[in-house]
Amino acid sequence: MDIAMLGTGSVGRTLATKLVAAGHSVTMGARAAGGEAATAWVASLAGSGDPRAGTARQGTFADAAAFGEVIVNATSGAHALEALDRAGPAHLAGKIVIDVSNPLDFSRGFPPMLTVSNTDSLGEQIQRAFPDAHVVKTLNTVAAEVMVDPAGVPGGHTLFLCGNDPGSKAVVLALLGDLGWPSTDVLDLGDITACRGTEAYLLLWVRLFQATGTRLLNVRVVAA
Amino acid sequence: MDIAMLGTGSVGRTLATKLVAAGHSVTMGARAAGGEAATAWVASLAGSGDPRAGTARQGTFADAAAFGEVIVNATSGAHALEALDRAGPAHLAGKIVIDVSNPLDFSRGFPPMLTVSNTDSLGEQIQRAFPDAHVVKTLNTVAAEVMVDPAGVPGGHTLFLCGNDPGSKAVVLALLGDLGWPSTDVLDLGDITACRGTEAYLLLWVRLFQATGTRLLNVRVVAA
Repeated sequence: MDIAMLGTGSVGRTLATKLVAAGHSVTMGARAAGGEAATAWVASLAGSGDPRAGTARQGTFADAAAFGEVIVNATSGAHALEALDRAGPAHLAGKIVIDVSNPLDFSRGFPPMLTVSNTDSLGEQIQRAFPDAHVVKTLNTVAAEVMVDPAGVPGGHTLFLCGNDPGSKAVVLALLGDLGWPSTDVLDLGDITACRGTEAYLLLWVRLFQATGTRLLNVRVVAA
Repeated sequence: MDIAMLGTGSVGRTLATKLVAAGHSVTMGARAAGGEAATAWVASLAGSGDPRAGTARQGTFADAAAFGEVIVNATSGAHALEALDRAGPAHLAGKIVIDVSNPLDFSRGFPPMLTVSNTDSLGEQIQRAFPDAHVVKTLNTVAAEVMVDPAGVPGGHTLFLCGNDPGSKAVVLALLGDLGWPSTDVLDLGDITACRGTEAYLLLWVRLFQATGTRLLNVRVVAA
């Protein structure tokens, strides 16, 4: 598929590299075209000798969103709404927006707080701001390394998915398979309001990170 | 040990019954002595023919707290601070207070919201209100049935524990063993501020409950 990766941080670069390796074409979007991180990402693929490297491109948020059939929001939560606005509502309409960001607020240091929680969530804010997009929230409960290599954490473990459109969730489930997630490890939590749960979980995740000392962690849901 | 069980709801009754069966003496406390639920609980144990039934008693919050070496707060989160105040700060001073409650707000129906979250937690509120008590938060991330029968959920799964006093956490770890939790399945998340994580997780738990259709659920933490 043609995929827009909004955000040039480690999450965006890690996801984009894996998606290209899986056969997708990815345009990485940033506030301005030709930025250091996106340019370096394109160059690193070109230098790798991968015959598919030509499918990795970069541009503005709007360039990327215009290109993508699926748009991945991998910006920091604090900038997500602004980035999607720069991408352009017309470029999002009718498309799947995979939101992998978290509304983290590090203004008081670590562990972070959330900028929105409890009665609302960033995923819902994005869906409300872009009502013609099909927002699917997933991947936000694991670190970038785990997003693209779930087998790196031993044993089966669970990835959450939510959104209002069943067809869009099915497409995302297939993309998650390309990242390495067996569909049996992906748990559909229902509509976009379930983001209140998966985003609030970050407040536990940071404590699990402190207790285990590794970002290579996740939880497995077990039920009788 | 002599244990005070504050709260006569299903969580309090379930925990109290298991603790008596494990050899502890439990006084169940309520707003008023002789209430229906606590009286029925005492009578049910007396009627069971268990020779230890005589160690199950009931009274006011203050009666129970005066009796207990360890105080369990199993009231609803909305009433926790008031119940502990009625129990009496002097009866809590120097003792372990195990807080199993959650700050759930069902005023808008199901799924609930939290009355406190993100930058604070009920566990911290209790510790601040009763600075001479050793508050340990645990068990709040599982349903009552799972609290006393973790083996009823298949596979190993994780119970969280946090609090400021290491010695108190060690005592609680032993009591959790009496409830059926292997110490290897209990994860110490650090000081009482970790309640922000384990209480916020309830926003995910309710979605897991909706997705799985059972209260007999938990998560297993897996890490590389």
